Amino acid sequence: MELEHYLAAERDAVNAALDRLLPAADVWPARLHRAMRYAVFGGGKRVRPVLARAACRAAGGDPELALEPSCALELIHTYSLVHDDLPALDDDDLRRGRPTVHVAFDEALAVMVGDALLTEGFAVLGRFPEGDARGATRAEACRMVACAIGSLGMVGGQVEDLEATGAQADAGRLDRIHQAKTGALIGAAVELGALLAGADAARRAAFRSFGRRLGLLFQIADDILDVTGTAESLGKSPGKDATAGKLTYPHLHGLAAARVYLEELATTLRSEVVGLEGEGGILQQLVVFVARRDR
Amino acid sequence: MELEHYLAAERDAVNAALDRLLPAADVWPARLHRAMRYAVFGGGKRVRPVLARAACRAAGGDPELALEPSCALELIHTYSLVHDDLPALDDDDLRRGRPTVHVAFDEALAVMVGDALLTEGFAVLGRFPEGDARGATRAEACRMVACAIGSLGMVGGQVEDLEATGAQADAGRLDRIHQAKTGALIGAAVELGALLAGADAARRAAFRSFGRRLGLLFQIADDILDVTGTAESLGKSPGKDATAGKLTYPHLHGLAAARVYLEELATTLRSEVVGLEGEGGILQQLVVFVARRDR
Repeated sequence: MELEHYLAAERDAVNAALDRLLPAADVWPARLHRAMRYAVFGGGKRVRPVLARAACRAAGGDPELALEPSCALELIHTYSLVHDDLPALDDDDLRRGRPTVHVAFDEALAVMVGDALLTEGFAVLGRFPEGDARGATRAEACRMVACAIGSLGMVGGQVEDLEATGAQADAGRLDRIHQAKTGALIGAAVELGALLAGADAARRAAFRSFGRRLGLLFQIADDILDVTGTAESLGKSPGKDATAGKLTYPHLHGLAAARVYLEELATTLRSEVVGLEGEGGILQQLVVFVARRDR
Repeated sequence: MELEHYLAAERDAVNAALDRLLPAADVWPARLHRAMRYAVFGGGKRVRPVLARAACRAAGGDPELALEPSCALELIHTYSLVHDDLPALDDDDLRRGRPTVHVAFDEALAVMVGDALLTEGFAVLGRFPEGDARGATRAEACRMVACAIGSLGMVGGQVEDLEATGAQADAGRLDRIHQAKTGALIGAAVELGALLAGADAARRAAFRSFGRRLGLLFQIADDILDVTGTAESLGKSPGKDATAGKLTYPHLHGLAAARVYLEELATTLRSEVVGLEGEGGILQQLVVFVARRDR
């Protein structure tokens, strides 16, 4: 299947670049670098880098220029998982079928692994793509990604998610959490691709708007998988959201309604994205992939 | 005393800018923003912003252009304190005479306050100073600061500090910890000032080298204060380093030798800095201030 080959090739390119960007496991302080690599090379799907590169291509840019900045998004995504898994937050022992960082190493190191990965993300965004003429693009990438993942974005969503745990069902609150916690970084990935392709403000905004709703689609699919997936397919225990009393789409609206909403949103996005990249582009296939994924 | 007035005016300017840069305490998610402000407005001396602005002036630049980027350093410094204080790390209940963030709020929020402050630091570095012509400077500021505070710098130093706690005395290891944990960010502050002043690579390197050793001076003064200071002057319990079995200068070399080394290093830096800013400049006075501070 063509999309599968494309995704596998993209994952390989991203993994090779991440390997080049991260300090080797024996560089001082070796335990930290070992743990950073343990967290990053845990079999992730690399959704955010793949989306950033696809958006760059869809916006008429060279996806090779987007390779390292895309990897920055994966470093940042990994930091968020390592911190979310901490005992004081979601207290997860398993991630993608392996012990989480605070279990495999220790809690103090997990805090610092997250800190170092977040920081390294900005080191990469500040460096790539290279060249004096691209300085303003790099600075804007730092600013834009930081806004997406800060207190008004991803971190804010995680705070609200923890506060809403066990709270009464509230559809507006759930949308706000999903948009901030997942939508903001996926939206930033899609917008980053457009930025690196040199898109103007209006076109960037269109990519961002599409990306945020694609992030929402991703999160609803995630909520559904937590109900319907198996431990084997997920690499973690299913049903964790319900046990923890998390606000989710299936919890709030029922599984059937969540599936209907997922399909409706996927249909809308599949049709809207034609306006961004023309007929039969890669973003359109990625919408289907995000909606149908089984892990 | 002139230096005191200068420092008070600088602190006021930095505090006013930090207040403008941070979301208001009632902005969603309000609990996070309240806690971020609690952490930032806790009576810090603003040493890193003051140094960055002084270095910018010393390198012939306009310190007003350095105001917001300097504040980014304070946001980053504050993040490092909030995470260092966590139960899994240094487990400190008191900071500048007030409960630490995880005590005043909770541990999960303290993790996310640190994450959000670190992120906000890069949002500010990516934004300021404004203008397309300064894009490459902003990107370089992001890259340079990220390198200073990442796994090879500040975070690496904190990892090594925790691992060295209770370990056998080792002068080389102690130097490595101090250089990474404190020297790297203070070095970056001084280098940032030179970068924003448009200094060339050689001059930037000279500022960086001076800054890193000024950071070492700062840390040795800190180590000595932990032995000689009072709870009232420090805003925290003195003797914590010794109790925790931390590697410090007084612990390794004795208090008298640590004081001699402090004075020698201060004398060297006072004389060297003349080559950077001429006779009687502000950086020279700040060397004295760092060496003689009592809290």
